[in-house]
Amino acid sequence: MSVAVEDQTAATDSERLARAYLLGVAEPPAPHLLEFVGEHGPVVAAERVQAGDCPEQVLRETAARRESTIAEQDLEAAAKAGARLVVPEDHEWPAWPLLSLAVATGNGVKHVAAPLGLWVRGSASLAEAADRAVAVVGARMATDYGVHNALEIGHALATRQVPVFSGAALGIDAAAHRGALSGGGVTVALLGCAVDYSYPAGNVALLDRIADGGALVSEYAPKTPPARHRFLVRNRLIAGLTDGTVVVEAGIRSGARNTATIAGALGKVVMALPGSVHSGSSAGCHALIRDCKATLVTSVDEVLETVGRFGTTAPAAESSRRPTDNLGPEASRVYDALLPRAGRAPEEVAESAGVPVSRVRALLPELEIDGFAVRGDTGWRQIVRTANR
Amino acid sequence: MSVAVEDQTAATDSERLARAYLLGVAEPPAPHLLEFVGEHGPVVAAERVQAGDCPEQVLRETAARRESTIAEQDLEAAAKAGARLVVPEDHEWPAWPLLSLAVATGNGVKHVAAPLGLWVRGSASLAEAADRAVAVVGARMATDYGVHNALEIGHALATRQVPVFSGAALGIDAAAHRGALSGGGVTVALLGCAVDYSYPAGNVALLDRIADGGALVSEYAPKTPPARHRFLVRNRLIAGLTDGTVVVEAGIRSGARNTATIAGALGKVVMALPGSVHSGSSAGCHALIRDCKATLVTSVDEVLETVGRFGTTAPAAESSRRPTDNLGPEASRVYDALLPRAGRAPEEVAESAGVPVSRVRALLPELEIDGFAVRGDTGWRQIVRTANR
Repeated sequence: MSVAVEDQTAATDSERLARAYLLGVAEPPAPHLLEFVGEHGPVVAAERVQAGDCPEQVLRETAARRESTIAEQDLEAAAKAGARLVVPEDHEWPAWPLLSLAVATGNGVKHVAAPLGLWVRGSASLAEAADRAVAVVGARMATDYGVHNALEIGHALATRQVPVFSGAALGIDAAAHRGALSGGGVTVALLGCAVDYSYPAGNVALLDRIADGGALVSEYAPKTPPARHRFLVRNRLIAGLTDGTVVVEAGIRSGARNTATIAGALGKVVMALPGSVHSGSSAGCHALIRDCKATLVTSVDEVLETVGRFGTTAPAAESSRRPTDNLGPEASRVYDALLPRAGRAPEEVAESAGVPVSRVRALLPELEIDGFAVRGDTGWRQIVRTANR
Repeated sequence: MSVAVEDQTAATDSERLARAYLLGVAEPPAPHLLEFVGEHGPVVAAERVQAGDCPEQVLRETAARRESTIAEQDLEAAAKAGARLVVPEDHEWPAWPLLSLAVATGNGVKHVAAPLGLWVRGSASLAEAADRAVAVVGARMATDYGVHNALEIGHALATRQVPVFSGAALGIDAAAHRGALSGGGVTVALLGCAVDYSYPAGNVALLDRIADGGALVSEYAPKTPPARHRFLVRNRLIAGLTDGTVVVEAGIRSGARNTATIAGALGKVVMALPGSVHSGSSAGCHALIRDCKATLVTSVDEVLETVGRFGTTAPAAESSRRPTDNLGPEASRVYDALLPRAGRAPEEVAESAGVPVSRVRALLPELEIDGFAVRGDTGWRQIVRTANR
């Protein structure tokens, strides 16, 4: 499912250079700069920011790095690391999923401004990967139960050709990526540092494998180190680029809950897995479900049914109906009033069942035809019927 | 908390005798007979049913037992077993909770007609026990996890003076009763057989203990054996007599789900405990939560908060907030841009954080006052702050 990225570009060199500058000059999210770029286009906007010729709020967002940001160097460093800058002018730009960020910002949701561009390292097309995708996220401090479920969900999504987006953190995120890779699918990691920054150290080999057939994606220029606020800012991209977010395991205070909250604010589907009521690692999931912020899911079929876009319906849970379920209320009472080993007269059955004897006389032969009763020398007997399974 | 039942009676002997007859003459629920009794009062209604002088539909409900029902014998047998017949004319009748059944019937919900009377064995007053009560139910085939949780919830409700209603079945029901008993509370068992019928055999000692300080309750005359349909019919009483129903553990096809569905139809609060996504014994609970038919609960505090009537609010889940949570976005970025072991100049911090240097200069002393930063010979350093817990 990996997608070649040739012929995906459409931006001019000057547009890309301007975007590289704009992306580096303000710490994301930068709503005023975004608006300024929307009004003037990236090339003019970059020139004006560089010259200090812009509104007060834009000046403020860009003041600290106005003169130090060198876009050419960033683009060169990216190319050296096998990465590229994808900008809104490119075919590869995931415009449709990211529209949710613009809409939410317009609706007054804070801190969810769309990115000015995205650094991408990997062979997958970002637009194609985000066309139908599910985020699978969770806490770094995960239990075996959580890791197992994240692996399984990642794997099952991959085998259904649904790209798995996550945050490349230790614990649940890493397991979700690994599961997708094991299923031969595309997986995309949204980072809180540069795509050439080896973080977390324990996941460096995993990051390379993700980039092989999927993508590492970041707003941060090459060499940018991780920072706590960057993970929170990054969460809006995980939520925004996907159709729904599954929280596999999260403590009461986990970044994954933050991603879920943002996904909800963006109008995306939010899901969570339940677990033991005694597990602190499921407490965040339970709180999301209890507060009606997430739908409970227990399988990938339920995930896909909840996300809804993919035309999948979860198979009805095994209902193990009993044969007697099809009996009407009176027939059921008559059946219950029979004994398996001793015959009963219709009058006895009628009294025991509280059903008129005339109806009992009519129902008994029907029950016999359907294999629920048999008439013997001593009267009517019950034929014990077990469940179908 | 056991309540003496003296001076609870208000029905006349003839009313009680008539009710004993009416309760035995039709297999519950008997909506037409109930309506007929409502119109004519129990004494006249009983006389007319016995004489066959009643509408066709009432005749039909009562035809099989019209002549065989002997109320005097039932009352005598009950007295011998230490039981009594509680009727709507008694002070002890739980009129208010049972109103939900009449309302639901009026709204077209089927098979939830109110009972014509209730056989009670035990020392608790039915009206007082049902005044504020929670049903705790679940499957007979329970896991250790489910049994443990049922015991805990039963116990915790009892210690909070909330009577625990259940169905006295093996598995979850029995554990809920046992938990309530261990907490020194009142527990009430609604039966699908007579209050003097030893069923299930494995719970006979438990039934006696329930009757000691609580009550065994049934619509079925003394000596009536259990039957499958009687358990389903009984479920409406568990749901109707309580403020809310908690499903502790239930397979996809469990009677406990039926009780939950009825509770929902009666406008009562429905709750379910989550469990492992791999446990078939939690699948029914997950389905109820997923389909928005039940609220997820993980503790008795959450149960009481959800039921809502008892003035309890679940303590906020331990939030383990970090000290840095109170920092504004810019201060947070400045904090992140500091290093614990090496000093940085405000200009470096400004560029790294993407915050104007003038703001950085203002924020650093504030961070110092609050214990987040310190100024040293080589510049500003971060003071690492861990979570409060």
